Amino acid sequence: MSDSSINPSEVDIVIAAINSDLTPFLNEWRPIFSPFHLIIVKDPDMDGELHVPEGFNVDVFTKSDINQMVGSSHSILFSGYSCRYFGYLVSRKKYIISIDDDCVPAKNNNGHIVDVVAQHIANLKAPATPFFFNTLYDPYQKGADFVRGYPFSLRSGVTCALSCGLWLNLADYDAPTQALKPEQRNSRYVDAVMTVPVRSLMPVSGINIAFDREVVGPALFPALRLSAEGKIRWETVEDIWSGMCVKVICDHLGIGVKTGIPYVWRKERGDAIESLKKEWEGVKLMEEVVPFFQSVRLPRSAVTAEDCVVDMAKAVKEQLGKVDPMFVRAGDAMADWVKLWKSVGSSTPGV
Amino acid sequence: MSDSSINPSEVDIVIAAINSDLTPFLNEWRPIFSPFHLIIVKDPDMDGELHVPEGFNVDVFTKSDINQMVGSSHSILFSGYSCRYFGYLVSRKKYIISIDDDCVPAKNNNGHIVDVVAQHIANLKAPATPFFFNTLYDPYQKGADFVRGYPFSLRSGVTCALSCGLWLNLADYDAPTQALKPEQRNSRYVDAVMTVPVRSLMPVSGINIAFDREVVGPALFPALRLSAEGKIRWETVEDIWSGMCVKVICDHLGIGVKTGIPYVWRKERGDAIESLKKEWEGVKLMEEVVPFFQSVRLPRSAVTAEDCVVDMAKAVKEQLGKVDPMFVRAGDAMADWVKLWKSVGSSTPGV
Repeated sequence: MSDSSINPSEVDIVIAAINSDLTPFLNEWRPIFSPFHLIIVKDPDMDGELHVPEGFNVDVFTKSDINQMVGSSHSILFSGYSCRYFGYLVSRKKYIISIDDDCVPAKNNNGHIVDVVAQHIANLKAPATPFFFNTLYDPYQKGADFVRGYPFSLRSGVTCALSCGLWLNLADYDAPTQALKPEQRNSRYVDAVMTVPVRSLMPVSGINIAFDREVVGPALFPALRLSAEGKIRWETVEDIWSGMCVKVICDHLGIGVKTGIPYVWRKERGDAIESLKKEWEGVKLMEEVVPFFQSVRLPRSAVTAEDCVVDMAKAVKEQLGKVDPMFVRAGDAMADWVKLWKSVGSSTPGV
Repeated sequence: MSDSSINPSEVDIVIAAINSDLTPFLNEWRPIFSPFHLIIVKDPDMDGELHVPEGFNVDVFTKSDINQMVGSSHSILFSGYSCRYFGYLVSRKKYIISIDDDCVPAKNNNGHIVDVVAQHIANLKAPATPFFFNTLYDPYQKGADFVRGYPFSLRSGVTCALSCGLWLNLADYDAPTQALKPEQRNSRYVDAVMTVPVRSLMPVSGINIAFDREVVGPALFPALRLSAEGKIRWETVEDIWSGMCVKVICDHLGIGVKTGIPYVWRKERGDAIESLKKEWEGVKLMEEVVPFFQSVRLPRSAVTAEDCVVDMAKAVKEQLGKVDPMFVRAGDAMADWVKLWKSVGSSTPGV
């Protein structure tokens, strides 16, 4: 199942354990995940025992590991869906792949199981083309190329730092959409991956994602937390917020972000009507957040992801802080994240 | 076959007759095209008689019609692939669909014939979303929606003015690519249509295209002609050039451009190695053209497509004219096109 061209020593698979029994989840993924090292982070809010099946090369991190390593930082909370970011912090691999624990392997149009690891790594290893749109999607994939009119000077592309995968069955809709269309399921398998153009913002979903940790790792963080955030994806916006930051940072650094395949099959979880009672906060915030990210410019002096996050954190506090104190906390968390990234990265041997 | 929700009185199908015998072409398209009015423009360079099969509601235009209507304009040449633009000029319909005469209907992943008219019109009638990227592609299509994090204020979208379809079998590659990969055929049917984000440029191919003539008709014109242009698609750039103009104009006017489905099945035509001897001119020009279109800004006073083309023509002559006299001619042709569009549009009853 696994692609032999991928070096397992380059890849960590990070799983945020929201469910206490990961047995069915990991058994479904076994053919794809088993050659790789897994980092499982147990939601610190989870009281029960975590069940992980035998036969994986895995390190499990719990609340006590988080407390020990992060220590006195209060701005960054690793509870709920955000616990995965602790895994990003302790990884020492070049590539990280992270999949929500309510997702199982999807099948493509030919009925074959999608190898999410192979496809994400292929997306990250092939160049991205953010500066000109190729109508035949990824020009580097087998059987494709740049179309007539594509400038030759742009055909070598740039580094791809982030690969955003998609979802069959239950798509990543917000609570209002989910509540309005409770029967809606995504059955359209679109066999394409493409670079999201420079200066085009997108909602990055953390459900099925991969990135080059060495290049953009510091730009994926849990910073924006809704006051009523719960244990259901559509009650969170931490990935959307971080996704806006990382896209602006990639644009600034001249590197690329891709979206499309691979798909995962996402199972049911949660009651949208219940969530709707508290979800509007996140929906309303986006109206402030998007114009900010569309206009924010990073200084030329910012030449690494760390630099960019520090400058972005300042801009967030200055420009959005007056709108809502939540943004002040987000800016603080971003600045603290970079400190943490540097200290954990330099002081610990990693996993 | 045809979609009953489409009003045939709103649609013209424009065919540039490069082949003298359109019988096989039109017979293949009969189930899809027959409810609609066809405008066929015979390449003025073609000497032989044009064969059009019975059973279509069709108007055929020839060299003498062109000469009579266009009169003394010398800057605009309607020969070869550019003859289709004469059809755009004489149409009085809201929507125009144009397909190259070496294309036949394609089949989708389920083996069903693609109704190119229904899909293009659906693309044009549904809003476009150029200001924020939706990872699940067209949010308005059945079974899809806006994903979590998509700003609610942008979910009503904007008018879509241009729909760019794709090609199975022989894709629209340039002569160097075609010569380098003579065996390459596109077999990947990507079941998606999406809005190309604002400020992202793309190579618009004229092979399989539809547009709202009332909104952007004046911005689709034959202006850039290579000195060695022939009767093979990859020897032309007139559509690429016009496509850059129309994208910048749509961005300026706040309207959208879509790309993706519908596909057509494109047959073989031409010898890439032969074309390669003269093709490099077009390839080299793109290196000058792309930075120009990436940076050109239209004045606020330009509020219609006509206004925009006039201002764009000026900028082309001023900024690109010194690079190559071909651009001076292109700017003149654009300015003359707007005059022609206005005079033909107001003085003749149309077809």
